[in-house]
Amino acid sequence: MRFHCQVMDLIAGLSTSTRALAARSTMPILEGLLLETCAQGLRLTCTDLALGIETVVPAQVSEEGRIVLPGRLFSEIVRKLPGGEMELSTNDTFFSVIRCQNSRTNLAGLDPLEYPELPQVEDGNLVAIPQNALRSMIQTTCFAIATDETRPILTGCLLEISPEEVRLVALDGFRLALRRMPLGQNIEPTQAVIPGKVLSELAKVLPDTSEPASLNIGRTHLTVDMGDTRVVTRLLEGEYIRYRQILPEDWQTRVKVRRADLENAIERASLIAREGKNNLVRFHVTGEQLLLTSNAELGDVQEDISIYLEGKDIDIAFNVRYISDVLKILADDEICLRFNTNVSPCVICPPEGDDYTYLVLPVRVFNA
Amino acid sequence: MRFHCQVMDLIAGLSTSTRALAARSTMPILEGLLLETCAQGLRLTCTDLALGIETVVPAQVSEEGRIVLPGRLFSEIVRKLPGGEMELSTNDTFFSVIRCQNSRTNLAGLDPLEYPELPQVEDGNLVAIPQNALRSMIQTTCFAIATDETRPILTGCLLEISPEEVRLVALDGFRLALRRMPLGQNIEPTQAVIPGKVLSELAKVLPDTSEPASLNIGRTHLTVDMGDTRVVTRLLEGEYIRYRQILPEDWQTRVKVRRADLENAIERASLIAREGKNNLVRFHVTGEQLLLTSNAELGDVQEDISIYLEGKDIDIAFNVRYISDVLKILADDEICLRFNTNVSPCVICPPEGDDYTYLVLPVRVFNA
Repeated sequence: MRFHCQVMDLIAGLSTSTRALAARSTMPILEGLLLETCAQGLRLTCTDLALGIETVVPAQVSEEGRIVLPGRLFSEIVRKLPGGEMELSTNDTFFSVIRCQNSRTNLAGLDPLEYPELPQVEDGNLVAIPQNALRSMIQTTCFAIATDETRPILTGCLLEISPEEVRLVALDGFRLALRRMPLGQNIEPTQAVIPGKVLSELAKVLPDTSEPASLNIGRTHLTVDMGDTRVVTRLLEGEYIRYRQILPEDWQTRVKVRRADLENAIERASLIAREGKNNLVRFHVTGEQLLLTSNAELGDVQEDISIYLEGKDIDIAFNVRYISDVLKILADDEICLRFNTNVSPCVICPPEGDDYTYLVLPVRVFNA
Repeated sequence: MRFHCQVMDLIAGLSTSTRALAARSTMPILEGLLLETCAQGLRLTCTDLALGIETVVPAQVSEEGRIVLPGRLFSEIVRKLPGGEMELSTNDTFFSVIRCQNSRTNLAGLDPLEYPELPQVEDGNLVAIPQNALRSMIQTTCFAIATDETRPILTGCLLEISPEEVRLVALDGFRLALRRMPLGQNIEPTQAVIPGKVLSELAKVLPDTSEPASLNIGRTHLTVDMGDTRVVTRLLEGEYIRYRQILPEDWQTRVKVRRADLENAIERASLIAREGKNNLVRFHVTGEQLLLTSNAELGDVQEDISIYLEGKDIDIAFNVRYISDVLKILADDEICLRFNTNVSPCVICPPEGDDYTYLVLPVRVFNA
């Protein structure tokens, strides 16, 4: 195997593919990066068996071949090369030579025959979603995934596809995040539960472009194709929670508030709240005012926020982190809070449309 | 106590003073920040007993007084305030109220009488050094301080003042860092050993201005005054190593090299070196070439660098980190390397002048 390529191109390819590199694996081959020449140049592949990423880098191939190199070390070496053009060649004993200007590195590799093949999805359902829209949906849903493993299915996000829309849902028993995007594609309704860790990596790989990503959803695996890069992930087995029945439809109290006002007040309140036992913040909604309070032994805080209220006054308390997590990932100028009673869920949604629904359970407290 | 001030001014003062805040102390009062009204406004003081920092912030005082507030929490609260003007008032039970726009926080404080007084330096030697020059000297010396405590005096930097020059010296048994600055002040020769951790904090507090910092060097303590801020530090007891006798004066080999060339090559070599047992890099100096090599089981690296050589050829080996630490903090286009034999120290110095001298011991290896 022998090829030339631009150092910058290879660095870009490595940044993408090594996101799937196993950190420390019982299978040493998974700490390797598979390099193989192909019609378009050089294909890089990494997988930790749960997630696989392959990407193609432009290269001038003078001798076809494949090799597995230590992934982390090879990436670091390439990143530190002087730049411009580099050459990589290998011999029959899996030894590679990397040359760039006055620098020459020999690196021992592994037999590419030992490297696992990435799973293929056959008879899957195909759907195209703009890459930046998919990225944004993931980034604003993932935070609500369960972190404990008592119900493994909740460590993933539910992807629901219908001809009309795409939905991404995460919930952990205390809160729920739901993003919607209109679709309008003639496809079969389908769903899949994608592991949370994989989704975070996918979001990092997805570029900020409206070009479509092609999803191919199979029974056990999902592939996402975007330009020169393919991501393959295992899906979680089992049925997801029927979340629709959790979402209330009628509301006693509807509040419209400037998001930045609420976010800043919540951030200040959380400083005091975390000193207390329950990390609690109380909302007192009356007339045109939302009074936020929080207290601990060390002190207390009180924040006045102007709101627009429809419906009844309400006093309700939350774990401040659950509210703050939602406010941090939103960018809207104004948002709506909807309540029924102080023991039933609150929903945060946009003033217009239904792009997102964030549901948070309140904490029962004795009102003073 | 009651004062008004600009949130931004208070944040700036807190950034400086809280560098001396004890992280977790057996004395809870040291986790506090002392606020006291003074003629210029508000004085903030923190100390962990080794290091003390006080700084003055402009404020309109309507009622004089003092209070100790929880340092970390108070800083975080102030940083999150809406901005503009804020008011702080306290009552007799050391409770404070912080008001800013629609936000009001009550915070329990402590009795200021329990707060330790910062030590004063009497009959010290006074010297003035430009603040940015002092900062730069510290930043380029501190890295060579010993990290283990077997010889406590080596966990500090030696500050040597003579009428002609200021010197700052650090050494750890494997290497030495020495910075010089011409002075020309009519003062008594004096020296002090300043704890390394304190020096790093001092460097962060020193602003990038050529205004002078006033050092007052006593027997047990040193104060540094700069504008509205004073830093007080304990000095290390005992005599520092007589480092002058370690510095060679004659050289068999003098090499001039572009610093960036050497730094980049060393960085690449270190990737392979750290995979080996000894983190070794070998220098082969011949004619107009410096050949850098490093090897490990996994591979090896070879870097060709153009140099200008005066004197004998030499083969010599180093712990790559000791060379890399020096190259990283230098900014010069060209530097000089000086050698005698491959078992005696190498020195890195500027091509002209004597602003700095970095000495590194070689590692004895059998030459192949």
